[in-house]
Amino acid sequence: MTKKYDVLVVGGGPGGTPVAMALAAAQRRVLLVERGAGLGGTCLFEGCIPSKILYESAQRLRAIRRAAEFGLCLSPGEPHIDWQAIVARKDAVLRQRAQWALDRAQTIPALDVRFGAVALLNQRRALLKPASGEPYEVEFASAIIATGSKSVRPAVLGSGLARMITSEQVFDLEYLPRSLVVVGAGPVGVELSQIFAAFGVRVTLLEAGLSILGQVDEEIARMLEVRMLHQGVSLVLDARVTRICHAGGGAFVQYRDTAGAAHEAYGEYVLEVTGREACTEELGLENTAVRYDRHGIRVNHVLETDEPGLYAVGDVVGQPMFAHWASAQSLVLAHYLLGQPVRFPEPAVNAAVIFSIPEIGIAGLTEGEARKAGHEIEVVRYDFSVDARAQVAGHADGLLKVVYERGTHRVLGVHALGEGIASIMGEAALAVGAGITMEALALIIHPHPTLSESFALAAHLVPTSVFIP
Amino acid sequence: MTKKYDVLVVGGGPGGTPVAMALAAAQRRVLLVERGAGLGGTCLFEGCIPSKILYESAQRLRAIRRAAEFGLCLSPGEPHIDWQAIVARKDAVLRQRAQWALDRAQTIPALDVRFGAVALLNQRRALLKPASGEPYEVEFASAIIATGSKSVRPAVLGSGLARMITSEQVFDLEYLPRSLVVVGAGPVGVELSQIFAAFGVRVTLLEAGLSILGQVDEEIARMLEVRMLHQGVSLVLDARVTRICHAGGGAFVQYRDTAGAAHEAYGEYVLEVTGREACTEELGLENTAVRYDRHGIRVNHVLETDEPGLYAVGDVVGQPMFAHWASAQSLVLAHYLLGQPVRFPEPAVNAAVIFSIPEIGIAGLTEGEARKAGHEIEVVRYDFSVDARAQVAGHADGLLKVVYERGTHRVLGVHALGEGIASIMGEAALAVGAGITMEALALIIHPHPTLSESFALAAHLVPTSVFIP
Repeated sequence: MTKKYDVLVVGGGPGGTPVAMALAAAQRRVLLVERGAGLGGTCLFEGCIPSKILYESAQRLRAIRRAAEFGLCLSPGEPHIDWQAIVARKDAVLRQRAQWALDRAQTIPALDVRFGAVALLNQRRALLKPASGEPYEVEFASAIIATGSKSVRPAVLGSGLARMITSEQVFDLEYLPRSLVVVGAGPVGVELSQIFAAFGVRVTLLEAGLSILGQVDEEIARMLEVRMLHQGVSLVLDARVTRICHAGGGAFVQYRDTAGAAHEAYGEYVLEVTGREACTEELGLENTAVRYDRHGIRVNHVLETDEPGLYAVGDVVGQPMFAHWASAQSLVLAHYLLGQPVRFPEPAVNAAVIFSIPEIGIAGLTEGEARKAGHEIEVVRYDFSVDARAQVAGHADGLLKVVYERGTHRVLGVHALGEGIASIMGEAALAVGAGITMEALALIIHPHPTLSESFALAAHLVPTSVFIP
Repeated sequence: MTKKYDVLVVGGGPGGTPVAMALAAAQRRVLLVERGAGLGGTCLFEGCIPSKILYESAQRLRAIRRAAEFGLCLSPGEPHIDWQAIVARKDAVLRQRAQWALDRAQTIPALDVRFGAVALLNQRRALLKPASGEPYEVEFASAIIATGSKSVRPAVLGSGLARMITSEQVFDLEYLPRSLVVVGAGPVGVELSQIFAAFGVRVTLLEAGLSILGQVDEEIARMLEVRMLHQGVSLVLDARVTRICHAGGGAFVQYRDTAGAAHEAYGEYVLEVTGREACTEELGLENTAVRYDRHGIRVNHVLETDEPGLYAVGDVVGQPMFAHWASAQSLVLAHYLLGQPVRFPEPAVNAAVIFSIPEIGIAGLTEGEARKAGHEIEVVRYDFSVDARAQVAGHADGLLKVVYERGTHRVLGVHALGEGIASIMGEAALAVGAGITMEALALIIHPHPTLSESFALAAHLVPTSVFIP
């Protein structure tokens, strides 16, 4: 007997789970199938959350090293890093969040959650291979593919050896290595380089391009490069990896610069974080009209694939690959499928935080993107060195840039570097998303002394406002 | 020869300085007179900033005590608190900020800054008594009184003795006392009680009322009361102080409860933080038509006193007494005096953070205030125990309440308790101030994992939204 559903959702991460729960809560019969061991996806098990657990320990360690500046005298001796305790804390948080997600899902009668693999047989039927038990077929009126993405392993000679790890494996290393080569200075590579450097690991970060964090405001990326060097990260730009060789308890990474000169870097492990690709394999997509390549599944403006009734959300449709972007798409898709008026999220109002040290915040368009989109823009800059909160917290450096439209003074983008700015980027996202003007922002009463005041203080710098030197 | 100005500003704190600088930048000849030693007012010298410096050390100390939870093993032994180092750090930040304010002021040619006292002779003339040099008269077309507020010393028997201190003195104690009695559980009393308790001081907090923090959402205030008890603060409600007696190296505070029973508490110091009153003395207000009482100077909706051409801003006009409120008034007054269209700030869009442990955030109206103002309201509650960021940071408790209007779904108020929420209250203020709806808030892409996601997650709980259990 084939079980029938209104909607099949494939993938229980930030892309699949919200739409599954929302549709089921609205009485649609929904089957949510997750291939891994729990609900949460890359974000929970291999991405945002585990890296933030490490980040939290790294930042606390950095704070401890500065205790004396704040009148706190510790017993002498450098703190010992109990890597196993950090990994255990990570596992506990992961278990707790996965269990919580499952508990929430199970409160919804119309939602079935199954763990296992799914292969589409056609646009209305799929074979479900459960983690335990016999495979069986299911029927559905529509399906949503939310299978996410996975690390790309670059085709470099020697890649794939035991000392080569990806971001999926780094959080479960059995011990803290003494040295690490990180290949790729995107957000993940930057975050992990700084975290491990804070833990005292000798980190070499190799980046093929001429700057880190390609999509970030150039000036802010440069500022972070300088900080990384101060933190002891050996950052090497213009480094194209040519070969990796095992050597004793580690590996040598050989690379060349543009001039062709050969260099090498040694690490007990080599962490490859050179990119991610959509998870489109073994889904039976070839049995449908869905079109896709390694960048992702092709969808239209309502996230429908080339196969009518089949939708895709999150990393599997390509860039930008962020958990919050996937969730936003997911919820809007639920509204859409329920026949409610919706506006699908647009990259121009996306926001993100890179948990570098210090954090980088992004909301809306950079100067370059805004100009490319045809906006006439102005930019104001607020320097955290004069900020009350930043001074009090002992982190009095960093920069906030606000990009706004010349005529309307509407905020188009906010870009920031600074300790603690992660928390204020929600306001930046709201300002961008709701089309707030600089004048309105200037008049909002921001509590003092908090980092969020920086928005109002930046807005006061608009030349047509009352001038505050 | 009498010097002539367009505008005399009396008081160089957050109320006086912005309007003085803005008017002078717009080519008005402005005289700014500050009675103290530098620009900054109560906020910088005796309020927000010094208490936040202590708060920073207290929070860092609390974090150090939890290091092992995050896999960081310190050498054994409780941290030693170097009180003199904390006071020295405070002094350095104060000097730096005061100097910076003065430097900024001195970049404006039309602005004269003088240190000394001012007494109005009439509505167009004043006598300036400089800190050094001979008194002289000045003439002005209009004046702005921004003299702030000072601690009220309650008329209790024994009050005024050497062991009795106010919030103006507590930041310069020569040593960290072993015990402290704090009288008054308003924001200042609560903040300082928790800070000193974190430093290991035995703190008794006496409050005459039946709850702490009268103006805060009742449920949130109660939650903080419980935390304070766990932190070792001996909180006593319904405690009316009757007498204070010196005893050896400290003082006994005698108090009675409603039933009339007598009790006493001992502290090396007694910190009185029972309220503040407007600084209206020795200003020569009696030589003008300005009307005032101890609650403050009476002003109309454009902050003009009963004497035409004489304005007043900030604490000296009474509640709410917040630095950011004073600055907001100050800047809007500048716009107004320059003939620009303005909207003076309204208490319904005020926002504030109480730096309790954990912080309390307030933006807009509480449930009670909203009902009193005639709104039909709904309230959603988001519990930080399920929040990703809060779990990662190891502070997974706390509450966010969003009050919104039933018909329009516009956000009317945000009230929160939680570690780190200070930084997200700017977004709350923006949502309230710009009249954002819950639906709009739900669709803003908040970076993950940050505390600011709590706004979107709370907004998803609106029953008419797609239901997320």
